[in-house]
Amino acid sequence: MEFKVNSKELEKILARVYPAIPSRTPMPILENFLFAIEDGALTVYATDLEISLKSSINIVAEENKSILLPAKLLYDVVRSFKDTTITFEISDSGRTTLTTEHGKYTISHLGTEDYPDIPSFPDENVDEEEINEFSINGMDLKYALEKTTFALSKEEMRPAMMGALFEFSGEGFRIVTTDGHRLVNYLRKDIKQDFDEQYIVPERALSVIQKLLDERDVKIFLTKTHISFTLNEIELISRLIKHKYPDYSSVIPLENEFTLKIKTKELHDAIKRMMLFSSSSTRRVKFSLKDNVLQISAEDTDLGASGTENILCEYIGDPLDIGFNSQYVNDILSHMTSEEELLFKLHSPTKAVIIFPTEKKENLDLMMLLMPVRLNS
Amino acid sequence: MEFKVNSKELEKILARVYPAIPSRTPMPILENFLFAIEDGALTVYATDLEISLKSSINIVAEENKSILLPAKLLYDVVRSFKDTTITFEISDSGRTTLTTEHGKYTISHLGTEDYPDIPSFPDENVDEEEINEFSINGMDLKYALEKTTFALSKEEMRPAMMGALFEFSGEGFRIVTTDGHRLVNYLRKDIKQDFDEQYIVPERALSVIQKLLDERDVKIFLTKTHISFTLNEIELISRLIKHKYPDYSSVIPLENEFTLKIKTKELHDAIKRMMLFSSSSTRRVKFSLKDNVLQISAEDTDLGASGTENILCEYIGDPLDIGFNSQYVNDILSHMTSEEELLFKLHSPTKAVIIFPTEKKENLDLMMLLMPVRLNS
Repeated sequence: MEFKVNSKELEKILARVYPAIPSRTPMPILENFLFAIEDGALTVYATDLEISLKSSINIVAEENKSILLPAKLLYDVVRSFKDTTITFEISDSGRTTLTTEHGKYTISHLGTEDYPDIPSFPDENVDEEEINEFSINGMDLKYALEKTTFALSKEEMRPAMMGALFEFSGEGFRIVTTDGHRLVNYLRKDIKQDFDEQYIVPERALSVIQKLLDERDVKIFLTKTHISFTLNEIELISRLIKHKYPDYSSVIPLENEFTLKIKTKELHDAIKRMMLFSSSSTRRVKFSLKDNVLQISAEDTDLGASGTENILCEYIGDPLDIGFNSQYVNDILSHMTSEEELLFKLHSPTKAVIIFPTEKKENLDLMMLLMPVRLNS
Repeated sequence: MEFKVNSKELEKILARVYPAIPSRTPMPILENFLFAIEDGALTVYATDLEISLKSSINIVAEENKSILLPAKLLYDVVRSFKDTTITFEISDSGRTTLTTEHGKYTISHLGTEDYPDIPSFPDENVDEEEINEFSINGMDLKYALEKTTFALSKEEMRPAMMGALFEFSGEGFRIVTTDGHRLVNYLRKDIKQDFDEQYIVPERALSVIQKLLDERDVKIFLTKTHISFTLNEIELISRLIKHKYPDYSSVIPLENEFTLKIKTKELHDAIKRMMLFSSSSTRRVKFSLKDNVLQISAEDTDLGASGTENILCEYIGDPLDIGFNSQYVNDILSHMTSEEELLFKLHSPTKAVIIFPTEKKENLDLMMLLMPVRLNS
């Protein structure tokens, strides 16, 4: 059979689907795109068994056919073409020939019989009542993921924390991420659904969808086992993490009575310098707060190097010395650069600190939490 | 003792000298900058024993002093400062304190007694008559290095070919690079010196100097053992490779009678596609020349993939099939993109091909040579 497609249009859908091709896999069959030609549409699938991506394009084809084509080779070849028409000829003997104005190329294809099933949404095996559904603007979701995913845990010992909690409740739509050292709590108070549920979405799905988001709305379907993100031209389906998320609310201190207001950029610049002087094993910096001055200091005794800086701030509270991992402070500040000023709420050298932008956005609560580290002085 | 320096001016000279700091070394002392303060000037040195870099800046200082400061830490700290004044206080107890408007930082320093000698030019141990000297415009040298250094050998078994030949003769100033598979011959006919000599300059010196070159002239000194490049603000000294360079002229065929004229970009685009289809072990592509058509084909039997393209060209000669390593063809074409059209001179499937830009530049000869690979068909 034969079909024709524009090279640049095909390149676009291959680029969208390619992120689901695993870079290393014990199952070489996953290194292929599945091309499904049906009723004048070409749908391209890819999966690494955790996430799958699919995207479709209208083509001129008389017959239906499904084959597997080596993803990297095909993507590289299609990218190397100018804007031109590609004629695909799929032979029954396992060879696919691409013809363009440039030349003629032959690639071996495989049948689809050994390819894993691609989940579809809604799945016929899932009761309609078990599917929850909501929409969110693409840029809003992108912002939420930018602020939260950096705090995801990478420790396989705590699988729940390797994903982001998506929580729907009377308060709104909440995303929580934590690795036990810091925590981000994002709450959209205007997205209220008629269901109360918790889902844990794995990191890989979030990082792939983040790159695909734009101004347009995203439709999200949720079942007990899967999440699906549908944009106009692409669908991402991911497994959910089937573990219980820790009770994040119990670690958020409610009575931190000391407050520190500080310019984000001044603090960030100082922390970037102090990181250079912090010990490479502990990465510790000390914050000393007193009389509207924040003194930050760090020392690397192995290198024989140390540094101290003073920053003017608004501090209301008792004099306080508190230690932090400078890398974690830097991570938080790197994700708050859009905020001019931050409010820290503190209590003691051993109690979690919470950090907010001083300017609140409508319908949006954003809070970051950071655990202190012990000062051995 | 104490001195003051502007942070951005110091950053500039540290950035220039930093490339000579080795990234991994069995001699940790080389991971330091040498700061020599003498008569109101600060000179910063770095060396990896093969190349050394030095750069100076005027400062306000009452005394003379030399110390070693940890290069990476100091460079990172100075880069992190805004445009400001840094006051250095060098104590006799091995601690250097930097004070800026931001804060105060202490770094351990070392004495210079164990630091290797930095060669200087002209060296008092070298007879003046043994020093050769010439000048070249910085952009001209940059162009020459861009066109030649990609063909340097990486094989330690052939140490001479790991450097570029700088040859001075009645013909002019010539640079030759080769790895045995391809060769580049660059000749500046207007740079004529009153000495006939061959020098082999190691790759590392060439790649470091390439990044420092600009519109200004470079003064180059040469002895039997060292080369020195002096720009306004920086001096690079490198050891020369003390081996005999192979007789490059004997491999350049003089009687290749078949000629192929072809657009550089068309050939390059085709080669980039054909590389995808060439076998990952041989990387072989076949050029078939006949009747003003160049047919390029490649086949990867392991993948079951193949491709064929035809390009219109001007070919004068007998029909010819000749094989090349597509990676080497691509390297050559990548360094000829500024040339609209290329002239290939060929003779047979086993004889070297030579390649020129069809448009000659005044006083400049540029020639690339490529060895064919066997076609087993």
